Amino acid sequence: MLVATSCILRSYPLYTTLFRRNMSKLSESQRDTLLKPLLDSNGWAMVTDRDAIKKSYVFSDFNEAFGFMSRVALRADKVDHHPEWFNVYNKVEVTLSTHDCQGLSTRDVDLAKFCDKVAKASKQ
Amino acid sequence: MLVATSCILRSYPLYTTLFRRNMSKLSESQRDTLLKPLLDSNGWAMVTDRDAIKKSYVFSDFNEAFGFMSRVALRADKVDHHPEWFNVYNKVEVTLSTHDCQGLSTRDVDLAKFCDKVAKASKQ
Amino acid sequence: MLVATSCILRSYPLYTTLFRRNMSKLSESQRDTLLKPLLDSNGWAMVTDRDAIKKSYVFSDFNEAFGFMSRVALRADKVDHHPEWFNVYNKVEVTLSTHDCQGLSTRDVDLAKFCDKVAKASKQ
Amino acid sequence: MLVATSCILRSYPLYTTLFRRNMSKLSESQRDTLLKPLLDSNGWAMVTDRDAIKKSYVFSDFNEAFGFMSRVALRADKVDHHPEWFNVYNKVEVTLSTHDCQGLSTRDVDLAKFCDKVAKASKQ
Repeated sequence: MLVATSCILRSYPLYTTLFRRNMSKLSESQRDTLLKPLLDSNGWAMVTDRDAIKKSYVFSDFNEAFGFMSRVALRADKVDHHPEWFNVYNKVEVTLSTHDCQGLSTRDVDLAKFCDKVAKASKQ
Repeated sequence: MLVATSCILRSYPLYTTLFRRNMSKLSESQRDTLLKPLLDSNGWAMVTDRDAIKKSYVFSDFNEAFGFMSRVALRADKVDHHPEWFNVYNKVEVTLSTHDCQGLSTRDVDLAKFCDKVAKASKQ
Repeated sequence: MLVATSCILRSYPLYTTLFRRNMSKLSESQRDTLLKPLLDSNGWAMVTDRDAIKKSYVFSDFNEAFGFMSRVALRADKVDHHPEWFNVYNKVEVTLSTHDCQGLSTRDVDLAKFCDKVAKASKQ
Repeated sequence: MLVATSCILRSYPLYTTLFRRNMSKLSESQRDTLLKPLLDSNGWAMVTDRDAIKKSYVFSDFNEAFGFMSRVALRADKVDHHPEWFNVYNKVEVTLSTHDCQGLSTRDVDLAKFCDKVAKASKQ
């Protein structure tokens, strides 16, 4: 079993398939426990007409903004879950949603928290 | 004179002020010689209702897209002229305009050419 | 089984453990088929006193060099296999070895090929 | 004069030439006021046999380390003064010296302080 699993793990396309197959939209209770804190006290907002969240970050300059983007880019590619984002100079607008379930999943919550952690560090 | 100039050069805020003061909108003849080639045969298009240009790049994956963004970011910050750009996975939409002259300047032409050069390299 | 596997897949530390447990040094035949081409015709060399390979890349400037590093960084973190590398201006020296097996594994071959692919693209 | 200066400013190679011509080694009094604080209480050390300083940073993971490198890379290319640096996973060793004066200049002090500022932020 261990061997079989590790073979699967080494097979990236299959890994991705398995990983994504289990991505499902946040349940009502997950929205309450996981999503609500982001919306209520962390500056995230629901996107109009889509099951997605967005947030605008303002940094002190481009250096700080792109340093944030570099860290989020590394994380995003590592977990194969990428943001939609817009940048101009010191501003970064991040929109998160999960393509495979056509809505918000735990992966968006995780990436949102990571964005907040990195942005908080950058600004200190 | 050399000494005086180099003192000015070392003073970044003043340098920026001087540099920007001389940014002016592209003249008609510059639009013909510098802008037209970008629009006619390099995939750039005028933005509706603004004196700005935009282009959409499609890369093979996020790695290639963000590698492109990293190089453009370095150049942009070096010349203190930053793009408005949007990215999701393998797509990057770049919009260029010069804030200080409220329209297109030679700096946009230069950055557009740099973007094209880097994108072309990335995709080979 | 699918459910169990996907739970394991979602558990990163366990994933890493499993993944790494199976990293083993290149066999003699793998060295012949996988490593030799890198050494013979792609500019890689064995490191003295270690089972590791290294290569020096020279780019046209820092922009090109760091663009290369950004792409390799994204890949490295995605596959959880990181280079030892040195950079100054347009030069990047990359050393590859697998910590967990104290020597060269297929992961080094894969990352070496990726480095070569990206460097080749950057320079065109 | 303003016009003349701004023409010079727009001419990058000349700008670089002028800028560099005035790079000189730190004087004894500058070493006391600018360099000593870095050595005494900020973890920088003189390199043996060279007029250069170095420091090792340890981050929590590669993401944090490369985020640091991305910000320093942007700054370095902006001011046209690049570090010699080595990275493996969460460690970054930075060596600073000024090629044009074959030793330490104020540019190294400035970049050292920037590195410290960014590293401090990353780790919070």
